[in-house]
Amino acid sequence: MDGLMQEVPLTLVHAFERCERLFGRGGIITARADGTRQRTSYAEWADRTRRLGGGLDALGLSADARVGTFGWNTACHLEVYFAAPCTGRVLHTLNIRLFGEQVVYIANHAEDEVIFCDRSLLPALWPLIDDMKTVRNVVVMDDSGDAGTGPEVPDDARIVDYEALVAASAPTEWRVDDERRAAAMCYTSGTTGNPKGVVYSHRSSLLHAMGVLVADGAGLSERDIVLPIVPMFHANAWGLAHAGVLCGATQVMPGPDLSPAAIARLIAEEHVTISGGVPTIWLGLLPLIDSGEADISSLRTVLCGGSAVPRTLLESYHRHGVWIHHAWGMTETSPVASMAQVKRSLGPLTEEQEIELRLTQGLPMPLVDSRIVTPGTTDALPWDGTSSGELQVRGPWIARDYYRLEGSSESPLTADGWLRTGDVATIDPEGYIRLVDRTKDLVKSGGEWISSVELENAIMGHPDVVEAAVVGVPHPKWDERPLACVVVRPGATIDREELRAFLASRVAKWWLPDDVVVIDAVPKTSVGKFDKKVLRDRFRDHQLPS
Amino acid sequence: MDGLMQEVPLTLVHAFERCERLFGRGGIITARADGTRQRTSYAEWADRTRRLGGGLDALGLSADARVGTFGWNTACHLEVYFAAPCTGRVLHTLNIRLFGEQVVYIANHAEDEVIFCDRSLLPALWPLIDDMKTVRNVVVMDDSGDAGTGPEVPDDARIVDYEALVAASAPTEWRVDDERRAAAMCYTSGTTGNPKGVVYSHRSSLLHAMGVLVADGAGLSERDIVLPIVPMFHANAWGLAHAGVLCGATQVMPGPDLSPAAIARLIAEEHVTISGGVPTIWLGLLPLIDSGEADISSLRTVLCGGSAVPRTLLESYHRHGVWIHHAWGMTETSPVASMAQVKRSLGPLTEEQEIELRLTQGLPMPLVDSRIVTPGTTDALPWDGTSSGELQVRGPWIARDYYRLEGSSESPLTADGWLRTGDVATIDPEGYIRLVDRTKDLVKSGGEWISSVELENAIMGHPDVVEAAVVGVPHPKWDERPLACVVVRPGATIDREELRAFLASRVAKWWLPDDVVVIDAVPKTSVGKFDKKVLRDRFRDHQLPS
Repeated sequence: MDGLMQEVPLTLVHAFERCERLFGRGGIITARADGTRQRTSYAEWADRTRRLGGGLDALGLSADARVGTFGWNTACHLEVYFAAPCTGRVLHTLNIRLFGEQVVYIANHAEDEVIFCDRSLLPALWPLIDDMKTVRNVVVMDDSGDAGTGPEVPDDARIVDYEALVAASAPTEWRVDDERRAAAMCYTSGTTGNPKGVVYSHRSSLLHAMGVLVADGAGLSERDIVLPIVPMFHANAWGLAHAGVLCGATQVMPGPDLSPAAIARLIAEEHVTISGGVPTIWLGLLPLIDSGEADISSLRTVLCGGSAVPRTLLESYHRHGVWIHHAWGMTETSPVASMAQVKRSLGPLTEEQEIELRLTQGLPMPLVDSRIVTPGTTDALPWDGTSSGELQVRGPWIARDYYRLEGSSESPLTADGWLRTGDVATIDPEGYIRLVDRTKDLVKSGGEWISSVELENAIMGHPDVVEAAVVGVPHPKWDERPLACVVVRPGATIDREELRAFLASRVAKWWLPDDVVVIDAVPKTSVGKFDKKVLRDRFRDHQLPS
Repeated sequence: MDGLMQEVPLTLVHAFERCERLFGRGGIITARADGTRQRTSYAEWADRTRRLGGGLDALGLSADARVGTFGWNTACHLEVYFAAPCTGRVLHTLNIRLFGEQVVYIANHAEDEVIFCDRSLLPALWPLIDDMKTVRNVVVMDDSGDAGTGPEVPDDARIVDYEALVAASAPTEWRVDDERRAAAMCYTSGTTGNPKGVVYSHRSSLLHAMGVLVADGAGLSERDIVLPIVPMFHANAWGLAHAGVLCGATQVMPGPDLSPAAIARLIAEEHVTISGGVPTIWLGLLPLIDSGEADISSLRTVLCGGSAVPRTLLESYHRHGVWIHHAWGMTETSPVASMAQVKRSLGPLTEEQEIELRLTQGLPMPLVDSRIVTPGTTDALPWDGTSSGELQVRGPWIARDYYRLEGSSESPLTADGWLRTGDVATIDPEGYIRLVDRTKDLVKSGGEWISSVELENAIMGHPDVVEAAVVGVPHPKWDERPLACVVVRPGATIDREELRAFLASRVAKWWLPDDVVVIDAVPKTSVGKFDKKVLRDRFRDHQLPS
């Protein structure tokens, strides 16, 4: 027997029209390159977005065209964010920090028909344009400000001025009536292989926005002034842009200047109540807060994710009266999959206990399920806080496949339909997730798994070790065995026996590294994470002592 | 182009399993008839609910059986609330306050196969049992407490003991994989015609629960201790029961004693943070708060709806440090369709302005759309705060039809798919809804509508008038004209000319009542609302002065 409720699709059109009707007085504040701030009411934004919808038609885009963007967080970007999906097209945010050849690969793979590009970013994009086979136009959004200090715009027939396009177009009626229709896509910037495209639906985008609004999520409200520092080209700005429109929160868009001083000014002058960004952002701001130069008294919370929040960072902000709200997710999870809420039902906690919980990856969001399994299987492991396995998630805003790789061997799903995240985690009896490693960084020894990250943490406890990375190297009997690559304090030395003796009381005997090599520095990726692939390649043929 | 996100259905199974996995330490506190409190952890509740699922199979219920309940708010009721829908069956909450013949009509119309009945309510239900043609068993839930003071249970083969059923059954796996499947039903207790059944789906119930969790909704959180005074048999306890399970809030179930003293004790002793109930409940509690006998310092807010919140009530609670959060909805809207949030974007408000906004029916919830139309048409009226028309709503938790009346002339939808609420409202430019009347109480004069409620309010401003009800009576030229039925102060008199003179400066000329009759009292319905149907019948042939 079926319910008798209305068949109203869950689409971003609803979020847009809700904002247009109810929150016209609210709006968006954009910091421009010349230091001025542009204030756009939601009423203006809605009118401009509807005109832009007409402009997309005028550009001759196909019915489900991929509409690329190459831009900072601005009000204009938020216009494209809704005009593309609400006309049935697919917003495709390109990551401005990738190498040119990756941007070209992604635009060609998605078959973008147009790219909306900030004027300040044209020098990076324009040289690639001839390699982008399907891109017919570049629409230039002027993020430079009234001073008009941006780079010169090439004199080329493919260039379209954003303001002229909006001004010349009539407002359009939106046309999406299927909640499963694609709304947006974002390519993962994986460290191996080609980037892969995640395709969000209207349903997943709206439900994810609802998740950002729930009290135990970010609790975003019309009363908030939200500063999304996390880029709109990076996993939907963690859903803040969509959720901000859905609830009518004022959005402060930081534009191109993400320096600590610029962020501090925005928070203080716009009375920001909630912000979101990676740990690096909050680390950068800390000296200004400590010295009293930055006033963060308006902040009620800060969302932090993308990589693990260091304890000292959390403690420092707490001392300044702000709890950092730790979130976890990935492009494939829209991205917010879990958040570190502190449960009242745990009873009174000491500050230390609360900090411990806030440092975890938290509890799965409403509508999201989580589990850990033995890597390579679908065998669920117990939630005992010690068993570690691959973290897998399931839910209406979790990806099931990649664009134009559907059904291939690259499917991100297990046979029973859960997303393989590639993260290794424990889950405690209360459901708190703690990441301990990446599956590809595990060392498989005799059928058992050794966590390279836990072993590294133990090694970095040695007073002479500055940094350490553990990789698995082939072993004839055990398949793989751990090799410790360490950077030592200037003037110090360390050898295999000394390190093993130091570790003997700290890790299981079979975890002890078979060998130690001293290196100058641990190679890092472009975002500052350990690049163990380089080390694995370098030490592939390393002869372990027998 | 479609999205590539997981096809995970939105079902109450998710809410149940989330609570079972993450919130086992939280739970339910039930006040029993003997004054004791039963404490059930969510871990126990989840185990008992799964066993009850097995029990439903053991009772031989069909795959989509309607599972009736006739009970107070208790932990047992919350077990049936999930065991029925999560086994694919349909929870059917019977309103214990209806007349016996209405209960019989509803149980027969829904074809309930079983009724779960509180022991304290057996004396009301059991005499009806032989008239309920499809009910094979009555399962008795003992809400009386350890003292066992409840009424005697008949010695009859159709009686099943709830605890015995749960104890004898093995936990079951849930089996719902279609979000459009019926989860629950509730009959409207309309004042005219037979009660009509609204059938909620899993999708609508879960989305509605999400709405209760969003910050600008009730903002319900795991950290809350929620006291649903609104009955679980009345429009899903406003979604608090489902939402409480979804987010793991502690639920305080008041059982049969809804006296002000009992409510006050629960709030103070269980440190309740949020509660929901009709204005009568909060009016009843007020003397205890004023006198200092009731301690409500733990409350962060109070949800109030079902009928309009009187200004004095809102002001009184505000003086005691608690804002009443005004909500509007009906059985057909799950029920929460709008809430009176105060927008920050309106700028700084005086206390008087804030009170005015909090007294409105508020803004539509996320995922819900609202409009006003000229009654009987689909012509939208402007949001100018003065144009009044029928309030209509649309959204995924709004009904499209009634059970076994599908497609009939009783369809609650307009031709373009909006629910006709029967309420007459204005909507101001900010989206705030203000109810002004019921459509059936409008007086249609010469093609224009006169609001009987507004006219009554004006009449009741006359110093000699105690109460007034306005009804339309047939008129040969104008179709209908207003007749004022007034109750006057003892010893006072009032006539047509005096009242019209009094009103002349207060309402439009064509709104002036054509005649006045003095009556002893305005007839009231069982829930205390003006029963104008009685007056319309009585004065149908009243001769208006020409």
